[in-house]
Amino acid sequence: MYQSTLFSRVQREFPEGEESLNARLLIRGGFVHKLAAGVYAYLPLGLRVLQKINSIVRREMNALGAEEMLMSALIKKEYWQKSGRWDVPIMYTLKHGVGDEEVGLGWTHEEVISAIAENFIFSYRDLPRAVYQIQTKFRKEARAKSGLLRNREFLMKDLYSFHRDSEDLNAFYEKTIEAYKKVFKAVGLEARLVEASGSEFTKEYTHEFQVFSPAGEDIVFYCNSCDFAQNKEIFDEKIKNCIKCKKGAILSASAIEVGNVFKLGTRYSDKFNLQYTDEKGARHSVVMGSYGIGQSRLMGTIAEMYNDTHGLMWPLSVAPFVAHIVGVGNDANVRNVAEALHGALEKKGIEILYDDRDLSPGEKFQDADFMGIPTRIVVSQKTCALGKVEVKKRGENEIRFVTPQEAEGML
Amino acid sequence: MYQSTLFSRVQREFPEGEESLNARLLIRGGFVHKLAAGVYAYLPLGLRVLQKINSIVRREMNALGAEEMLMSALIKKEYWQKSGRWDVPIMYTLKHGVGDEEVGLGWTHEEVISAIAENFIFSYRDLPRAVYQIQTKFRKEARAKSGLLRNREFLMKDLYSFHRDSEDLNAFYEKTIEAYKKVFKAVGLEARLVEASGSEFTKEYTHEFQVFSPAGEDIVFYCNSCDFAQNKEIFDEKIKNCIKCKKGAILSASAIEVGNVFKLGTRYSDKFNLQYTDEKGARHSVVMGSYGIGQSRLMGTIAEMYNDTHGLMWPLSVAPFVAHIVGVGNDANVRNVAEALHGALEKKGIEILYDDRDLSPGEKFQDADFMGIPTRIVVSQKTCALGKVEVKKRGENEIRFVTPQEAEGML
Repeated sequence: MYQSTLFSRVQREFPEGEESLNARLLIRGGFVHKLAAGVYAYLPLGLRVLQKINSIVRREMNALGAEEMLMSALIKKEYWQKSGRWDVPIMYTLKHGVGDEEVGLGWTHEEVISAIAENFIFSYRDLPRAVYQIQTKFRKEARAKSGLLRNREFLMKDLYSFHRDSEDLNAFYEKTIEAYKKVFKAVGLEARLVEASGSEFTKEYTHEFQVFSPAGEDIVFYCNSCDFAQNKEIFDEKIKNCIKCKKGAILSASAIEVGNVFKLGTRYSDKFNLQYTDEKGARHSVVMGSYGIGQSRLMGTIAEMYNDTHGLMWPLSVAPFVAHIVGVGNDANVRNVAEALHGALEKKGIEILYDDRDLSPGEKFQDADFMGIPTRIVVSQKTCALGKVEVKKRGENEIRFVTPQEAEGML
Repeated sequence: MYQSTLFSRVQREFPEGEESLNARLLIRGGFVHKLAAGVYAYLPLGLRVLQKINSIVRREMNALGAEEMLMSALIKKEYWQKSGRWDVPIMYTLKHGVGDEEVGLGWTHEEVISAIAENFIFSYRDLPRAVYQIQTKFRKEARAKSGLLRNREFLMKDLYSFHRDSEDLNAFYEKTIEAYKKVFKAVGLEARLVEASGSEFTKEYTHEFQVFSPAGEDIVFYCNSCDFAQNKEIFDEKIKNCIKCKKGAILSASAIEVGNVFKLGTRYSDKFNLQYTDEKGARHSVVMGSYGIGQSRLMGTIAEMYNDTHGLMWPLSVAPFVAHIVGVGNDANVRNVAEALHGALEKKGIEILYDDRDLSPGEKFQDADFMGIPTRIVVSQKTCALGKVEVKKRGENEIRFVTPQEAEGML
């Protein structure tokens, strides 16, 4: 793709008054545009990152055997009333039609999926089932100052599972935890599994995936020797030595919650009359689980973790492009070599950005660094004279002179 | 995919009290679930159809050189006030945060895209540009009784283009009309280009794509001999003979609006101060266009057009699966042949549904007909004895006995 035709561009300055690091980087880099506190537009470059994250999430959800579906944002008051969540302060409410009927904007979908599942789950033969959606969620956040980490409108994947008993739920829950680990690893994040309270959802302990970062709004207490970790909200701060391994010391860290898994049990199925008949004809409530990942928050977290003083440094798996060709100077030879390499890579299906703009090399390099595409390939009069191009990885200093063909092979 | 593991299933009855044909078919078929008037969930089968439509739309938008992005549903009151559209009755409005600040839920995005473009378009060198999004829109419809044809929450593709002058806009407008024709043809619809009023958007005539159908809420007057066609809202009903070709007679038909294209001119750029500098340093307002397609409405329209007394009949391009293997009986031989064919087709990347359920042949055939997958492949004791399978196209009567290998080749 020609950079001269891109809708967005790197801004010369950081956005005024913006304190969040991820917002500063993503706005200046031309990835997102802030429309209001907690409300962002994903510019074409940013949507590319978000779609890569979506693809990774989809791959792991499908591998779990879950089917993708899509629920609504407008959710009837009676559903929320059934579960006792109509008065949750973070829910946006509005009049639905011309009359007085009210709806809440979905911030989670336990109610809706329970109401839907009632039409399709009747017998033990219909279990287990798992469905997920990738959908825009809404939360009336009082403070929305952390860039993509806490938004009023955000993109989320929510997965719901249905089981005949706790044993089956537990097995799926463990499988989902493994799938989540794969997702976070694939997008370049080290996420720690942390015990937490169930808040609105359940009275049991639940699990969160937390990425340690000063930008995080959560506090995690964890053992420096084993995998014990608890969210501050449930941790007994008098404890100084690990109660699990009896060896390690307890440390604490700020962390960003990037995912969570809940055993709902029969909390929602009881309220929505979601039951199945077993082999002997007896009726039981369906046992449910609920599992979330926030993709827009993941994007913000990756930006928080992958940057330096020159700008962003995307992991390859979520980078908007695989490589960035930078043409230096307006020499016909430079243009020809750069064009040929661009064309060859696009033909191979490699996502490639070609900076064909009429700007100084300094400006181009600065923009390239800021955008953070993993590999930069410079074509200049100097490299052309040698029949070579310059290949440099973002974040590394080493520059390699290789032929355009060799450069192709390195991607 | 095994039908025994699908989340949804064909219902035995049409939904009670539902009058819309597309809703009756899609609900009974297990494609959508109605959550409220004008609000639907897309079940896994339905989302497959919707995603196929999205892919076709994306392909044609990308071919136009447009970049995909994603804007927000929450849109600040000040944007709507700037354009004079805050009081449009079809907009849902709500309090944004903890204070009194209000937002409108996006039913269109001219305001937002103009505000964003202001950050990236400065010079004639930055033009033309085109961006689109595939996004959930909201409209407070008074009547929402036409299934997926008129929803309060729906999926839409909106494209916006930016030009230096009307000439450049006109050229892009014509290109977009051609792209739209390709989209409608690809999903199996015959859509007629119709002149219409610009309503909220512009004072110029605009163009709509209309599919003639008794389910349509629009009335189109058209010539039976040339391409002249006007929406009832602008047509002078005294005219009986075509004013364009002077030969044809004017007829009228109910029609479903599946797409529209608008020349916005400088209506929004004037209000949002979206200007560019020309070669001589003079400043001009950017000339804009706006172009919509409703994918969920398209899905409803396809359901209206492609059905018979047995159920749905999806065109291959949007079908949830390419073929439907129906295993008849519980014979080990039947299972083995069906499993082998299912495995071989999945390995080839062909989307295949295999009815492995323990039901009577009659029930299975009825469900298969209702779901409307284009090709049905029956494996029974009888076909196994011949070393063959039965291939039948949905909507045709001819049944062909071919080997499983031949069946593979026919898909």
